[in-house]
Amino acid sequence: MRFSRQMNTVEEAMGKLLAGLTTLGDETVQIGEAYGRILATDVHATYDLPHFDRSPLDGFAVKSADTVSASFDQPVCLQVLETVAAGQFPRLEVTDGCATRIMTGAMMPAGADAVIMFEQTENPAEHSDTVRLKRSLKPGENVSRRGEEMATGTVIARAGERINAGTLAVLATFGYRQVKVIRKPRVGLFSTGSELLEIDQPLIAGKIRNSNGIMLSALIAEAGAIPVLFPGLPDEPVVAKEKISEYLREVDLLVSSGGVSVGDFDVIASLVDEPEVELLFNKVAMRPGGPTTSMLLEGRPYIALSGNPGACFLGFELFVRPAVQQLSGVPDAGPRLLKARLDVTYSKPCPYPRYLRGRLIERDGALYARPDFNEKAGNLGTLKDSECFIVIPAGGSGKQAGELVSVLSHATPSWRKEG
Amino acid sequence: MRFSRQMNTVEEAMGKLLAGLTTLGDETVQIGEAYGRILATDVHATYDLPHFDRSPLDGFAVKSADTVSASFDQPVCLQVLETVAAGQFPRLEVTDGCATRIMTGAMMPAGADAVIMFEQTENPAEHSDTVRLKRSLKPGENVSRRGEEMATGTVIARAGERINAGTLAVLATFGYRQVKVIRKPRVGLFSTGSELLEIDQPLIAGKIRNSNGIMLSALIAEAGAIPVLFPGLPDEPVVAKEKISEYLREVDLLVSSGGVSVGDFDVIASLVDEPEVELLFNKVAMRPGGPTTSMLLEGRPYIALSGNPGACFLGFELFVRPAVQQLSGVPDAGPRLLKARLDVTYSKPCPYPRYLRGRLIERDGALYARPDFNEKAGNLGTLKDSECFIVIPAGGSGKQAGELVSVLSHATPSWRKEG
Repeated sequence: MRFSRQMNTVEEAMGKLLAGLTTLGDETVQIGEAYGRILATDVHATYDLPHFDRSPLDGFAVKSADTVSASFDQPVCLQVLETVAAGQFPRLEVTDGCATRIMTGAMMPAGADAVIMFEQTENPAEHSDTVRLKRSLKPGENVSRRGEEMATGTVIARAGERINAGTLAVLATFGYRQVKVIRKPRVGLFSTGSELLEIDQPLIAGKIRNSNGIMLSALIAEAGAIPVLFPGLPDEPVVAKEKISEYLREVDLLVSSGGVSVGDFDVIASLVDEPEVELLFNKVAMRPGGPTTSMLLEGRPYIALSGNPGACFLGFELFVRPAVQQLSGVPDAGPRLLKARLDVTYSKPCPYPRYLRGRLIERDGALYARPDFNEKAGNLGTLKDSECFIVIPAGGSGKQAGELVSVLSHATPSWRKEG
Repeated sequence: MRFSRQMNTVEEAMGKLLAGLTTLGDETVQIGEAYGRILATDVHATYDLPHFDRSPLDGFAVKSADTVSASFDQPVCLQVLETVAAGQFPRLEVTDGCATRIMTGAMMPAGADAVIMFEQTENPAEHSDTVRLKRSLKPGENVSRRGEEMATGTVIARAGERINAGTLAVLATFGYRQVKVIRKPRVGLFSTGSELLEIDQPLIAGKIRNSNGIMLSALIAEAGAIPVLFPGLPDEPVVAKEKISEYLREVDLLVSSGGVSVGDFDVIASLVDEPEVELLFNKVAMRPGGPTTSMLLEGRPYIALSGNPGACFLGFELFVRPAVQQLSGVPDAGPRLLKARLDVTYSKPCPYPRYLRGRLIERDGALYARPDFNEKAGNLGTLKDSECFIVIPAGGSGKQAGELVSVLSHATPSWRKEG
């Protein structure tokens, strides 16, 4: 199996992986703990919003019929009955020739059908028994009607949506102290390779510090899952397989970096010949990360990423993040595909689609994608700047500046000024 | 002051606010706790990366001069000296006619100046005393040179950058177990308004549940600050001012919602007449959120947002998030301005620039901005979908579909399929 691997397109590989993953169970959390979680069910408006007719501004609630003749030069004078602040219940009905001084958000008094703003009356700062209106009003003018924003039963957020600050606002409004969310996926993580040193170990000739571990751990948390760290693997495939099975029983998904290539010590690569291992893919038509591997052990999903930091990062965004989304019940799991104009010519030919890390730039309303030129130099150094992957198709002579290319966006574009 | 306020453009108001804010002090955190934090200093490469010449693939390290005549039909045969795995130190020098079996990431043996990949040799899976090369190699081919990615002293990340997963990878590589970051700003928060009920209180006619509190709390945390919750204010301006001063002494920035309008009970609005209060602005040329107010009390910054949820949200993104960035030492604090084509005509005239919440859409490489139509209906319901604010300039007759508009982006575009 080491040198004779079956090629999968990125889409085929992603499809095989996601096909075996189903949404995890739900749990109930307090609203104060719900930020960033994925809703397990649709959530509905529990009452009409607003739940009473109210004034959207500071002014006077009136009968519009009383205001017909009002103008700047000939104001209409009404008798002020009371003042109603937001949160108060109006005591008096507005009858002919009368008005109620009313504050933003306060409940409309019975009898009134319009509100005139302070600034369209004379001496609004003065509390007086009368008010003089400098313009006429139409029925319903400046009144927010009960149910105008949302009727009882309206879906306010859907299952699979990530809860953000705006979601919390609407949940609070409708009195949801608790909310049902999908349990956070537990994602196991280990790095392979006898060349790896820990962050606090001194450098030794020939060895490198493990940078994928902390990177993947942060990416897993960022994706909304719980990273669970495991030690590396022994060299013998049979024992390694047992370890992986052991790890997998503790988590919903297992991820590793390294050991997927054709080298003599690539224990993951050799695993695929073991019984009880169902290979999903171990050759993907992409650069970097071609040997990215995924398999099921006893039906449980394991994704083995390349040890190269750039390939590891790409593999995370293409396979692990979508897998976490799928486990979390996010609809249409997977990176978002868009089109942008390539900002600079990329002419290096490649037998497979090349995924260039890069950034999105806006210029006069057009979207440009600028590669970070990370094929070799700066592989590690530009990881932090990556906002998207620019897909250079296989073969041919690359893409010219200005040509439309496919882009997979995975982070907030900084929309930095060009420099 | 209640009805005679001085108008500020959004840019003027933001400028006045940010002018008084300086970067907070720093603190040292372990790398495992550094995700999302803002670097306090530039960070440098502590050695040449890679720190030894290494092989970027699985193959054989050779002298390129030995391979000159090699071809598919007439392979060159070399004697294999040893196998070097990643992390091992090569024991033998490669001399004429010899090769070292070498794995990805392993150190180059002395004497060798190129690497041929397994697949370009005969029977690579077999461990043998000899290897037959099916092609020639140039000097330096397939060798990653010491320092090729980064030389010692190169800046790997700059002060003011937010630490993401990629930053962690490069910090780990260079052995940074700890890192100096800017202390998280403490942002005090309270809501005003006697109409407000807590989430778990039953609805009462005329009252509404406080949705701004939990929304702002989440937004503050999301912006990288620590929300500190305070109770609301008493009605008397003098006592209210004392409370605000008291709150301000515990935090780096104070934020509230409500009470900024011209209503009789708007205690914040009346504060500006108090001594020891330095008004920054209380009228901003924007809709919604015109009465958004900011002041200094004893030199400490206080931002009072509108109580209307949409205006409160806009005020947070326009003023509070930039203020948190400024306190955190982020360069060029403030929302990112870009241009996009308006997706649908917006013709409602307005004497002030109108900030429409909306989303960014890509179509054939062009960027479109689609308003969520939230002026009245759905004010609360569409908060969660906001990715940007579309600026409709003052006066005139709005903007036609297809016209370029300014857009302030504040969240990751979902790049959803149009629907």
